[in-house]
Amino acid sequence: MSTLTSINARTGEPQGKPLNASTMEEIDAAVQAAAAASDTWATSDGTQRATLLRALADALEADREMLVARADLETALGPVRLNGELDRTAFQLRRFATIAESGVPFERLDDPAVAGGPPVGHPAMVRQRVPLGPVAMFAASNFPFAFSVLGGDTASALAAGCPVVVKAHPGHPGLSQRVFGLIQQVLKAQGLPAGLIGMVQGASVDVGVELIRHPLIAAGAFTGSTRGGAALQAVANARPRPIPFYGELGSINPVVALPSALAARGAELAITLAGSIALGCGQFCTNPGLIVLIDGPESDEFVAQLAKALTTQKPHPMLTAGMRTAFDAGVRQQQELGAQTLVQASGEGLAPGPKLLQVNAQRFLERSGLHDEVFGPSSLIVRAASVAEVLAVLNAVGGSLTVTLWGADEDTPDNRALVRGATAIAGRVLFAGVPTGVAVTAAQQHGGPWPASTAPMTTSVGDAALERFLRPVCLQDAPAWLLARQGVPC
Amino acid sequence: MSTLTSINARTGEPQGKPLNASTMEEIDAAVQAAAAASDTWATSDGTQRATLLRALADALEADREMLVARADLETALGPVRLNGELDRTAFQLRRFATIAESGVPFERLDDPAVAGGPPVGHPAMVRQRVPLGPVAMFAASNFPFAFSVLGGDTASALAAGCPVVVKAHPGHPGLSQRVFGLIQQVLKAQGLPAGLIGMVQGASVDVGVELIRHPLIAAGAFTGSTRGGAALQAVANARPRPIPFYGELGSINPVVALPSALAARGAELAITLAGSIALGCGQFCTNPGLIVLIDGPESDEFVAQLAKALTTQKPHPMLTAGMRTAFDAGVRQQQELGAQTLVQASGEGLAPGPKLLQVNAQRFLERSGLHDEVFGPSSLIVRAASVAEVLAVLNAVGGSLTVTLWGADEDTPDNRALVRGATAIAGRVLFAGVPTGVAVTAAQQHGGPWPASTAPMTTSVGDAALERFLRPVCLQDAPAWLLARQGVPC
Repeated sequence: MSTLTSINARTGEPQGKPLNASTMEEIDAAVQAAAAASDTWATSDGTQRATLLRALADALEADREMLVARADLETALGPVRLNGELDRTAFQLRRFATIAESGVPFERLDDPAVAGGPPVGHPAMVRQRVPLGPVAMFAASNFPFAFSVLGGDTASALAAGCPVVVKAHPGHPGLSQRVFGLIQQVLKAQGLPAGLIGMVQGASVDVGVELIRHPLIAAGAFTGSTRGGAALQAVANARPRPIPFYGELGSINPVVALPSALAARGAELAITLAGSIALGCGQFCTNPGLIVLIDGPESDEFVAQLAKALTTQKPHPMLTAGMRTAFDAGVRQQQELGAQTLVQASGEGLAPGPKLLQVNAQRFLERSGLHDEVFGPSSLIVRAASVAEVLAVLNAVGGSLTVTLWGADEDTPDNRALVRGATAIAGRVLFAGVPTGVAVTAAQQHGGPWPASTAPMTTSVGDAALERFLRPVCLQDAPAWLLARQGVPC
Repeated sequence: MSTLTSINARTGEPQGKPLNASTMEEIDAAVQAAAAASDTWATSDGTQRATLLRALADALEADREMLVARADLETALGPVRLNGELDRTAFQLRRFATIAESGVPFERLDDPAVAGGPPVGHPAMVRQRVPLGPVAMFAASNFPFAFSVLGGDTASALAAGCPVVVKAHPGHPGLSQRVFGLIQQVLKAQGLPAGLIGMVQGASVDVGVELIRHPLIAAGAFTGSTRGGAALQAVANARPRPIPFYGELGSINPVVALPSALAARGAELAITLAGSIALGCGQFCTNPGLIVLIDGPESDEFVAQLAKALTTQKPHPMLTAGMRTAFDAGVRQQQELGAQTLVQASGEGLAPGPKLLQVNAQRFLERSGLHDEVFGPSSLIVRAASVAEVLAVLNAVGGSLTVTLWGADEDTPDNRALVRGATAIAGRVLFAGVPTGVAVTAAQQHGGPWPASTAPMTTSVGDAALERFLRPVCLQDAPAWLLARQGVPC
């Protein structure tokens, strides 16, 4: 039987006894239990869903000290960040509670009968949205709370009326077990079926593949690497009955810093950007991996300022030794493809030093290997000769969670073209600040064209995340008893 | 060079000279022209889009006599149906004109800044939706107007702000050419780029594959067979940069007729259902291919009434000789899998006679070959012993555009379970009438779990069809000049 081990992220030492990976039988049992809870939960009302979500938030907060300590041990992300992430996780559970309670996503669209023949005449129709059924949720390594067992995918799926089976991330198995224990206590206290939120675990890909293949799973939600997400999506599509798969994958998050912005506040922006590059050891899906500059003295000075600011950053250890190896390999690949190294600070133990590389736009456009995400505290500067070259660079990136555009303050043809170019490839376009830090709000859009997401019309953060788990259904000439019910039909 | 030929659907005789299939160069030129028109159209306002859509509707109506005659020659669908379909096509062009003009799909969600740190505090954010870019639209054979060159996909994509490249259906190449000629006149009269609506054609799969593979194509919309749609979806997913693919595929549209309904009005329902099975020679994606009955005297009598009513139906020739061959093969497969033949009327020339077969639920559940759609004037009765067996049959069907449920007039546990079972697999659940005839309305949902659709959260008919071609984007801390613009950003 395959096992997985909790690792101290700072020392690389195993913690405690190895855990057993879920067997095929256990995966099947978890999905069967979720499916058995499906009708009950689909017909629950907003108040009941809100009560569960709030109790889960309360449980996280009540166990904060132990949870943060365990998370810190397994991820080395540090107590400040982890307390903040726990806050966010509780916040989004409560936000989805409020949304479920409001009933807005479940409101019906009434389309009364119109007398006469087609195309004008039609029968009475009602459009509403129904929960999909059990969701397979794949936890991420880099957000042990907010994109993990009780993260946004779980919160939004539960709010939509769907049971969840979590595939825990092997990077923090101890934390996942503890959170899952809290969940089970809450479910029991509320008299809800234990199977409403299930969990499976494993260090190999087999567990996730088995989960997404299960015939009773109705959708998948994933946050992680492009390779992992693409592989699971292929499995979801190859099922006898394909299902929606929401993968939030890789992103290099270009930052376009125009000369006007750099002239006005280059020194300040360099410090802000250096902080964003190194934040959380660069382990954010919105980490700014590409900085696009237009040749000129402001850009030259900014590069020097950025290099200096980055050198002072001291990243903490990466989440796993494997990520550290992949980071070094990614930087090496950029060097081999012709990028010049500006900052190559040496690391300490499992903590890498920050890196800054530079390449000209022509080279960037020629070598698609330079478009790959390097996960960690590193960024690649692309020097463009013109706005046209900046646009070509954005077009070559193709899909990104974010594009940041500093200095587009005036309505000019160039700025319009840049906004269009940024909007064409990104889910979120920022005109100030840095892309790290994804607010959980009504307007948030965390997604984008491939490879940012497998489903660019959807978001995995923000209120609209709930919509991923509801399917529209039209009821035609529905009987009075059915129309008298609110929310889901039966 | 490969060619395609216009065929007289009633005689099987070729009409006129063979047409050349589009070459690789022509496909590329059409997509390049659409891409070149993309920014212009994305930044057009609702009034401009409405003006185009209404002029296209007017052009169809002005040329009605010639268009219907040509369509009838190539499809044998008859002038009554074809005039009605042209009406519907003009109606939906005008409906999307009104929607574009209203601006509703392009409205922004304002999410003002909230002071303070995360998770509560956040910057100013605005959520809006932007057009995807050039859409590859694959026309269907069975709706030469409503799901063809100027059909719902084209109308909704144009209303959303996307150029369209149509892959014409080889079943009606003459009609497609004529409609495309009208389009070009309208575009010219309005001073719009000719490439805003392009068209390619070909009898082999190569043209469609080349089109969906083109790097400048941003989405695909398809109506047709499960096999064809699945193949194109696989190509869309295998692109270096996968794109959304909206395929409306096969469906067997179960009709569950409960004993209470049959006792009350079985004779009338038998006549209505027979008409729906044979309508348009059964060549509708909403054709009722499965009739689920619960054993009892009402069902026995209904089967006899239905068989009698079906025998009197006289279907017209099928769209193509290939479809006729496939229809015969589909019926034969059901017979070989153990279905008993109740009606096997002989056909006349290219017109098949209607067929009615019957099987018990156990057999249906055991043989997945009996779940396949048979495209044509035929239906399979499934005799169930209980409501539980009916639910098992619906679950085995898995995905369907529609489920019809006659007799669920009272609020009983059985009826609730049946509504739940129907809703779980269908995009539209009907409680009266027949599934053929898909109204173009606000509440319509024409889609459903696989194999009904590759994208069950979307619809290809009704107002929400437009949403398939808009992608949400969040603008963070956007400058004043950008916020002052309405609709798309630049």
